[in-house]
Amino acid sequence: MKLTVIGLGHIGGTLAKTLRRVHASTEVMGVDANPAHVTQAKAAGWVDHAAPLSEAVAWADVVALAVPVGPMKKLLPQVLDGLSADAWSFDLGSTKLALCETIADHPRRAQFVAAHPIAGTENSGPGAAMDNLFQGKRMILCETEKSNPKAVQQLVDLCQAMQMELLYMGAQEHDEHLAYISHLSHLTSFSLALSVLQAEKYEDMIFQFAGSGFASTARLGKSSPEMWTSIFLENKAPLLRVLDTYTDMLGHFRQAIEQDDTEALRRLMAEANDIRRILEGKTSK
Amino acid sequence: MKLTVIGLGHIGGTLAKTLRRVHASTEVMGVDANPAHVTQAKAAGWVDHAAPLSEAVAWADVVALAVPVGPMKKLLPQVLDGLSADAWSFDLGSTKLALCETIADHPRRAQFVAAHPIAGTENSGPGAAMDNLFQGKRMILCETEKSNPKAVQQLVDLCQAMQMELLYMGAQEHDEHLAYISHLSHLTSFSLALSVLQAEKYEDMIFQFAGSGFASTARLGKSSPEMWTSIFLENKAPLLRVLDTYTDMLGHFRQAIEQDDTEALRRLMAEANDIRRILEGKTSK
Repeated sequence: MKLTVIGLGHIGGTLAKTLRRVHASTEVMGVDANPAHVTQAKAAGWVDHAAPLSEAVAWADVVALAVPVGPMKKLLPQVLDGLSADAWSFDLGSTKLALCETIADHPRRAQFVAAHPIAGTENSGPGAAMDNLFQGKRMILCETEKSNPKAVQQLVDLCQAMQMELLYMGAQEHDEHLAYISHLSHLTSFSLALSVLQAEKYEDMIFQFAGSGFASTARLGKSSPEMWTSIFLENKAPLLRVLDTYTDMLGHFRQAIEQDDTEALRRLMAEANDIRRILEGKTSK
Repeated sequence: MKLTVIGLGHIGGTLAKTLRRVHASTEVMGVDANPAHVTQAKAAGWVDHAAPLSEAVAWADVVALAVPVGPMKKLLPQVLDGLSADAWSFDLGSTKLALCETIADHPRRAQFVAAHPIAGTENSGPGAAMDNLFQGKRMILCETEKSNPKAVQQLVDLCQAMQMELLYMGAQEHDEHLAYISHLSHLTSFSLALSVLQAEKYEDMIFQFAGSGFASTARLGKSSPEMWTSIFLENKAPLLRVLDTYTDMLGHFRQAIEQDDTEALRRLMAEANDIRRILEGKTSK
């Protein structure tokens, strides 16, 4: 398989590394706006060739797009324009509705499959490529009814080779779920990190207390500004709704604390505790 | 050493288990308002005896208090009243100022050392007792100048035997640090868990995405309502100040997202990224 990966960062690199391992005949062409990333990926051995975008797209059987979701909207129509007749493309972005709308009327819409691996860390760049990150994780495929069934089947086969579990849903449904389950968590982590950093005098203390709950709640605050600026803006409407719900919850806590309302605090936290059941995989009450 | 532990939960149990391991002659008397906890701790083998409070206090060389910080304020004066002349007591609570003020004028103030282990998980109860939780963690001692130097030295020796690192500070300073580094993280996790739970229809999705950032940011939402109601109310003033800073940060994000302000978003997240330096232990810029 001739695979072109556009965007040689954490996710694009992980895809290339993993497919080379599980799909032995994979030959990888790398494209990245940053020439240093191309050099680094070739040196690390998970990219074989490099070429300008149009040449790399024309060469490929499969084109994977792993750039931030904002730039992705500009890039995808160009990729579709340049694909050879039997080739197909998929993305690995964190938001889906705006991207799918962008190419809804493209004559080669069927040569595209919208995908999102629910996997990642707070690290970024080619150095963060991993070859076991996708294993056991979910790959969401969106509006597959608009894609060529052969392309969908090939992507499904690749995902299964990477030991990923498949989920199917609409693009809007995807974005609403992700606002709750991923985007809000990132927003709260960034804000938490900023709040603590503002209290500069506590810096030594934060360091001393890395073993506390703080480290796990602020970990996502290390995530890439480039990537998350794109995600937050692309998923603006669902994210703002979810953020308002969250701000209301904080407000309930604030009021209960201010009024010494022991009962209200206990009740709020007892309700929140129900998250244990879900995080531990017991989905029915 | 005859050690009485009052409160046979996650922290009290961990103390008893650890000290039995590292300080071979430790004999443990357990006290808990819940008789089932006493039975469970004796069955698990980390409590030798049980007795009513006054008897258990009179018996001990050392009394450790590991109950929620609200009840602790009522309990500590009683414990000091009942201590024998050579005995001493310490607490393991998460807030310090109100507790220290409560016994500031107690005739036996010097027989008390205020302590707080920066260690814990979201689990609670005797079943959550661990014997390696404290190892490598910090123990904060507050206003030790008000304690009998011999008692302080004995507690320092016990902490070192448990391989804990010691930190010294004032009670008010302690509470302000902890509001930033621990209490706010818990408040945001509880609120995050509640927000997502409110969207009941997403429940299956949450479960599917346990590998995402959500699990780490919402983990503390499993914590004990009993314990955290006490902490939030005992540390009300610093916590509300910190919560306001945090709410401001969320507001900056909200505004930037609403106005499609790419530059503001990037700047906010780039600043937040500085948390990496601190979490990874590089404290100087």
